[in-house]
Amino acid sequence: MTRYWAEHAWLGGDATTAGVVIEVADGVITDVQLGPAPEGAVVLAGVTLPGMANAHSHAFHRALRGRTQRGGGTFWTWREQMYAVAGHLTPDTYFALARATYAEMALAGVTCVGEFHYLHHDVDGSLLGNAMSDALVAAAAEAGIRITLLDACYLTGGLGQPLAGPQLRFTDGSAAAWASRVSAFAPGGLARVGAAIHSVRAVPADQLDPVVAWARDHAAPLHVHLSEQVAENDACVAAYGMTPTELLDKHGALGPLTTAVHATHLTAGDIALLGGSRTTVCMCPTTERDLADGIGPARTLASAGSPLSVGSDSNAVIDLLEEARAIELDERLRSQRRGHWRAADLLGAATTDGHASLGWPEVGRIARGAAADLVTVTIDSVRLAGASPLLEATVFAATAGDVREVIVAGRRVVSGGRHLLVDDVPAALASSIAAAT
Amino acid sequence: MTRYWAEHAWLGGDATTAGVVIEVADGVITDVQLGPAPEGAVVLAGVTLPGMANAHSHAFHRALRGRTQRGGGTFWTWREQMYAVAGHLTPDTYFALARATYAEMALAGVTCVGEFHYLHHDVDGSLLGNAMSDALVAAAAEAGIRITLLDACYLTGGLGQPLAGPQLRFTDGSAAAWASRVSAFAPGGLARVGAAIHSVRAVPADQLDPVVAWARDHAAPLHVHLSEQVAENDACVAAYGMTPTELLDKHGALGPLTTAVHATHLTAGDIALLGGSRTTVCMCPTTERDLADGIGPARTLASAGSPLSVGSDSNAVIDLLEEARAIELDERLRSQRRGHWRAADLLGAATTDGHASLGWPEVGRIARGAAADLVTVTIDSVRLAGASPLLEATVFAATAGDVREVIVAGRRVVSGGRHLLVDDVPAALASSIAAAT
Repeated sequence: MTRYWAEHAWLGGDATTAGVVIEVADGVITDVQLGPAPEGAVVLAGVTLPGMANAHSHAFHRALRGRTQRGGGTFWTWREQMYAVAGHLTPDTYFALARATYAEMALAGVTCVGEFHYLHHDVDGSLLGNAMSDALVAAAAEAGIRITLLDACYLTGGLGQPLAGPQLRFTDGSAAAWASRVSAFAPGGLARVGAAIHSVRAVPADQLDPVVAWARDHAAPLHVHLSEQVAENDACVAAYGMTPTELLDKHGALGPLTTAVHATHLTAGDIALLGGSRTTVCMCPTTERDLADGIGPARTLASAGSPLSVGSDSNAVIDLLEEARAIELDERLRSQRRGHWRAADLLGAATTDGHASLGWPEVGRIARGAAADLVTVTIDSVRLAGASPLLEATVFAATAGDVREVIVAGRRVVSGGRHLLVDDVPAALASSIAAAT
Repeated sequence: MTRYWAEHAWLGGDATTAGVVIEVADGVITDVQLGPAPEGAVVLAGVTLPGMANAHSHAFHRALRGRTQRGGGTFWTWREQMYAVAGHLTPDTYFALARATYAEMALAGVTCVGEFHYLHHDVDGSLLGNAMSDALVAAAAEAGIRITLLDACYLTGGLGQPLAGPQLRFTDGSAAAWASRVSAFAPGGLARVGAAIHSVRAVPADQLDPVVAWARDHAAPLHVHLSEQVAENDACVAAYGMTPTELLDKHGALGPLTTAVHATHLTAGDIALLGGSRTTVCMCPTTERDLADGIGPARTLASAGSPLSVGSDSNAVIDLLEEARAIELDERLRSQRRGHWRAADLLGAATTDGHASLGWPEVGRIARGAAADLVTVTIDSVRLAGASPLLEATVFAATAGDVREVIVAGRRVVSGGRHLLVDDVPAALASSIAAAT
C-alpha cells in the first residue's frame, strides 16, 4: 500500500481540493481522504488529476511532425505524405516509433491511449496476422501506459474505389476476415481490444454489419472516423442516398459504446442521431486545425446527448490539456460567445469520458475503487503562477510540459518530469523517426 | 566583442542554417559567418532566431489568467472583469505586475514588447502625469527587454457615451491634453514611445486628428484596436455612416507606420484600405480565441499588402510561437485548406515585421548591422525531437517552454531557461497578482 498526498486534487467537482490523501494498493485507489500529509506519504506537488485518456491516436503520424508543413494543399494532399510513411514501417520499426511516441504521451500525462490501428499487413499486401498489433501493445507496455487497440477494418480506397499503394497494407480482404484476425488477438497486461470502422470511405455498407456484430458480441468499444471532410459526405450521399451518420445508424453502429471521431460536418439530423444514441464524439482540435477540417458542432452535439472525449490524432501536437481547452476556444471562434463548457466538463472529456470511450470505465476518476492513474501538473511554472482558480488555470493555461508526475495502475511512470522507463525519450523519438522516414 | 556559435540559426530564408558564428559588439551584430565554433565562442544549442516582438500587450491583463474562465458571456462581460483589476492598480503595484509579466515574456523569447497603455491616471480620475508609463518602462528595463510604450488616447466610454467606472482612469480629457502629456514623456534606455488610438469607440472623430498628427510629427508608430467586435462596427456605422477603417482612413490614420490590432470583422473595402496603405495588422490569435472575437481575414489582408505582426494581448497565454502558428491554423479552420503561409513568413511576423510595427526597424534579423537580439529554442525536447525541417518544426511544434537562451541588445537575459535578472519569476507573478486582485 502506498499513500500519496496531493497538494491539490481534482475530485470531479467544480473546483480543486487542497490536501488530499490518496491510498493505493494493487493498482487501485483504496481510499481518498482530505487532510494533511501523513507520515511517509509521497508528496504530489501541484494539481493532481486523474490519468488522461488520449482517445484517438495514430502513433506513426508522429514521424510527420514538421514534414507536412511545407507547401499548400488539403487533407487529401496531406494524406499522400502520411501514406509515404505508412509504406515503410515494419513491426520492428513501428514498435520503436510507437514506444517513443507513447513515452512522449506519458510525459504529457496520457495514461491510456486509444490506438486507431489500420496498418495491419506487409508492404506487398501479404498478411502479417497480428504482428503490428503486438508491436503496438508491446510499445505501450514499455512506455508504461494503458492501450486500447482499436483494430480498424479497412477494405476500400474510397467509396467504390480499389485500394492503392500503402492502402494495400490496411486490408484483411473482408469484414469476416478482419473479425477472424481480431478474434485471435488477446493481449494481456494493461491492454484491451476494440473495433473500428475506419470510415464509410473504407468499409462498404455491406461489410459494416460484421464489424458492428463483433463489437457488440465482445461488448467492446467501436470507433469510427466520421464526416471529417465534406468530400466524404458528398461521396456517401451520392453512393447511398444518405449521410455517413445515417448509414452508420442504419447498420446499428451508433450507441453508448460507439465513438465517432471528428464529426465535423454534420446535418441537424446527424446530430440528433449521434446525441440521441449517446454516441461519444471524440474531438481532435489540434489535428482538426492542422488538417483544415473545420470546427465541428461540439456544443450542439454535447447538448444533444453525446459525451465528448479528446484525441491527439495526428500527433502533430501531443498535449491533451491543449485539446481540452481547444474544444471551448474553437467553439468561441465559431459562436462569438464565451463559456460553453465548465472547465470541469473539459477535464472530464480528457479523463472520465475519454476512458469510458476506450472501454476502461474504472479509470479516470480520483475515487475509492477507481484505478490508480494519476497525473500531477506543477503550479510553479510561469504559466500557472498567480493564475486562479486552479481548475480553470490548469485547463486554460497549463501545457504538456508542465506535467511532473504520472502514475499508471499504481506504478510511477513519470517523476519530476522524467520518464522512469524510457531513458531518453527525445533520442528514442529521433532514432525511431529516422528509421521510419 | 562576444562570439556566439549557433548550432542552427534562421537567417531569414526558407530554412535554418547549421553552424553560424554571430559576432556581437556594443549590442549590435558586427558579423555573421558560417562555420564551426571558434575557440571561446558561446555555444547556442538548438535553433537560434532573431528576438521576437510582442506587438500588442496589456500587461495587467496577466492578473486575469484563469479568473475569466468561469461562466458564460461575451467580450463585453469579460471587459467588466478586466475593469475590476484596472480599478486597483497604482504605479507601484503596476510596476511589480508588469515586471513579472515582462519577465515571463522574456522567458518566452520576447525581446521587445509593445505595451498598448491606457491606464494613465488615478482611481478617482486625478491626473498622474506619466507615472504609470514610467512604471511600465522601468518594469521592462528590470525584465531586460525592449519596450515601445504605445500611449493610448481614450476619451469616451463608447461612441457618444460618457466614461464610467475605471474608464475614468484612462482619459486625459482631450486629444490635445493627451498629446501634451505624451510629449513630456521621453524614456531612455531600450524604450521608445508610440501613439495609440484606443479604438473608434474611445476616441471621437473630432479628436482623431491630434493623435495622428502627434504620431506623424514624431515619426512614431501609431496603433489602434480595429473591428475586434461586430458591435463596434455597427455603432460606428450608426454614428458616422462609415466603418471604423473608413473613419480612420478619412483622418489619415492608416499607413506604413500604423498597426491595426485584430481587424477581425472587415468589409472588402476595409481590406483594400488597410492593404493598400500598407498598414500592419497585428493578429492576437490566442486572445481572439479566448474572447470569442472570431477569425480575422489574415490571408486576404496580407495578400492585399498588409504586413502582419503578432501579440499576446490579454496575456491569457504568453507564447509567440503559438500566436505565429495560430495565424495559419485558424486560417485553415476558416478556409478548409492548408499552407497559407510559409513557416518563414509566420516567423517574420513574430520577429522582423513585429519589430518594424513597434518602431525598431534595426531589430529582428540575424544580420550584420542588426541589433544583437537572439532567442534560442532547444531541439532536444520531446516536442521537436525527430521533427523536421527545423524551421517548420520550430514554428509548428515548439512552445514558449522550449526557449533556453535570450539575448537583448547583446546582454544575456535568459540562460538555460532561467531568467538572469528576475530571480524567481513565478514568485514575482504570484505576489504581484495577489497585490493587484
